[in-house]
Amino acid sequence: MPSEEVERRLREAYEKDFHFEDGHVLGSMCSKPEELAVKYHALFSEANLGNRGLYPGTAMLEDELISDISELVHLRNGWGQFVGGGTEANITAMWIARNLSGKKKILAPESAHFSMKKAADLLGMELVDVPLDDGYRMDADALESRIEEDVAAVMGVAGSTELGTVDPIDEISGIAGDIFLHVDAAFGGMVLPFLEELGIWRGNWDFRVEGVDSMSLDLHKMGMATVPSGILLLRNREYVGPISVESPYLTTERNIGLAGTRPSGAVAGAYAAIKSMGREGYRDIVRRCMDNTRYLVEKMWAVGFEPVIEPVTNVVAFRTDDAERIRAEMDRKGWKISVIRRPRAIRIVVMPYVTKEVIEQFTEVLSDALKSL
Amino acid sequence: MPSEEVERRLREAYEKDFHFEDGHVLGSMCSKPEELAVKYHALFSEANLGNRGLYPGTAMLEDELISDISELVHLRNGWGQFVGGGTEANITAMWIARNLSGKKKILAPESAHFSMKKAADLLGMELVDVPLDDGYRMDADALESRIEEDVAAVMGVAGSTELGTVDPIDEISGIAGDIFLHVDAAFGGMVLPFLEELGIWRGNWDFRVEGVDSMSLDLHKMGMATVPSGILLLRNREYVGPISVESPYLTTERNIGLAGTRPSGAVAGAYAAIKSMGREGYRDIVRRCMDNTRYLVEKMWAVGFEPVIEPVTNVVAFRTDDAERIRAEMDRKGWKISVIRRPRAIRIVVMPYVTKEVIEQFTEVLSDALKSL
Repeated sequence: MPSEEVERRLREAYEKDFHFEDGHVLGSMCSKPEELAVKYHALFSEANLGNRGLYPGTAMLEDELISDISELVHLRNGWGQFVGGGTEANITAMWIARNLSGKKKILAPESAHFSMKKAADLLGMELVDVPLDDGYRMDADALESRIEEDVAAVMGVAGSTELGTVDPIDEISGIAGDIFLHVDAAFGGMVLPFLEELGIWRGNWDFRVEGVDSMSLDLHKMGMATVPSGILLLRNREYVGPISVESPYLTTERNIGLAGTRPSGAVAGAYAAIKSMGREGYRDIVRRCMDNTRYLVEKMWAVGFEPVIEPVTNVVAFRTDDAERIRAEMDRKGWKISVIRRPRAIRIVVMPYVTKEVIEQFTEVLSDALKSL
Repeated sequence: MPSEEVERRLREAYEKDFHFEDGHVLGSMCSKPEELAVKYHALFSEANLGNRGLYPGTAMLEDELISDISELVHLRNGWGQFVGGGTEANITAMWIARNLSGKKKILAPESAHFSMKKAADLLGMELVDVPLDDGYRMDADALESRIEEDVAAVMGVAGSTELGTVDPIDEISGIAGDIFLHVDAAFGGMVLPFLEELGIWRGNWDFRVEGVDSMSLDLHKMGMATVPSGILLLRNREYVGPISVESPYLTTERNIGLAGTRPSGAVAGAYAAIKSMGREGYRDIVRRCMDNTRYLVEKMWAVGFEPVIEPVTNVVAFRTDDAERIRAEMDRKGWKISVIRRPRAIRIVVMPYVTKEVIEQFTEVLSDALKSL
């Protein structure tokens, strides 16, 4: 097919997609990557850290980024790797926990991301739900009553998908003792450190808690990097032993982790974003997102919606028994929101592209939509 | 950090990497993506098919590509999905086979990619090696003797990593009967159809064989697309049932496969490559690679190396007990080749950037290197 025709079709497809900049996407945790991230992702598009010896430059970038992100979440002398995203990081952490312990049970809050179900099924493990407390955080007492001999891992969430809540990681660690403890900070990892710096929120949720063994953290969510910029961090480099295989025909003797070929343009992209924005840049973004989250809550009260909880991060849900109908009606009007089931609510992620102006438009359209329900 | 400094560092890192265009990379199965692929990957960099409802345009591109590639490998009314690469596709296929059968054993040729070890370990399955015949293909008799009640899957390779060989898939299928049969065509999938069209090789290795249930095929290898452009193809859409989980807060009710967020710029990139090159473009590339493979064999004979087998695809290995020392010495001279262990040999993948000129330079440098060993 002539290139012109191919390009025409691609542009046509592009027009059909929703774009964050249109401002009508209110239910995604991904972000429009920084321009510089896209540029350097493209330049490094042939790199493959699965064959690390060929890419000493990209490997250097990865090491430096892992070091920066480790510092952000207070990990010292640990180990980390770029992965495909939070799901792969969660699966890999559970894979490690299972292989280290020889045990099969995972204790996870009811608010855990659905990737934990995948992880358990893939790995032949058993996912045990731990109920939540009134604040929709893992209930520590309920966790304690479920600790048994056969537990391979306990996991907590730092920035839950549905409500943006943070589990009491220090309390959980106290209860888990020597059991492998994983923190899913896929969303919160690039939010909570800045909430702390801004003095908006304080918590003991990262590697400062000595019992934390691993963490997932996505830079393509609040990190303004390109997909796939997932990161898996481990307290101890030796944890990778049981998930490595021999790779005789590559430039390294052992291949670590789940993926073979590793998408590495994203590493350069993330480097461009993280380094050029700096902590200050991210702090500003988080400040703005939290301002806008409060603004949204205010506007939603005016339309008659109560938030399920006072938002901790820039994820907020509003109670309504009509969640599914509202979602469908807003969809017809070209607005993409999402729903959660417990409690029944509509959910909005106040990403950087969800500006005050977008919020005003949204609440107006919503107010209209409610009349026709 | 100022953008200029960030960009300076990124360019410095880029210079440290090996690049396919330098022509000194002779052991990688990845390729320099088409320029148009890189361009459209970048344009679609915010797309995420893990949340398909937001990206109807990208979803359309994926459907069309899956349909094109299905046709190429003679799959009708099947199902397919872009995935992170051959490893993820192999893992997912074994995940399906295990969940459909409730069984644990995988029969795979000794030549299977190391991702099969990962798959077996992750999934709690048992990988049973099936010996190879004189041509380094899975030995059908050996397979037959290993068929038992508890086999979840049989897998064969179409374009092996070490020697580029193709297992006798039709024979294997006859022996496997109703057992789930997976074909790893990560490399061969974009080579073998064109070898057939060119009349260079003929084999019954794809979905023409009725017993084949799934296939992995990478477009970032011989497809000139960007990483990650892995594809998993399934004979039957219903196979995804046991690997789907509920995803209430996304735009689709169920999330299928291993990944959550799915890197989807690569889908647009692959579309650009596949559509603009067309079958004719790929046929030309394969013809050239095979010409150059023959040229390499000729030149290597002159230096005193015998190929392990007459190459079937553009992967070729040369016997030598000094493989590891030769690899190290060539490494010092800035050439990246790889080694295999059984038989001891050095291995070269004649990708499109490995031109006749590169081959001439390489054999000269190798000839020199041998003197100092």
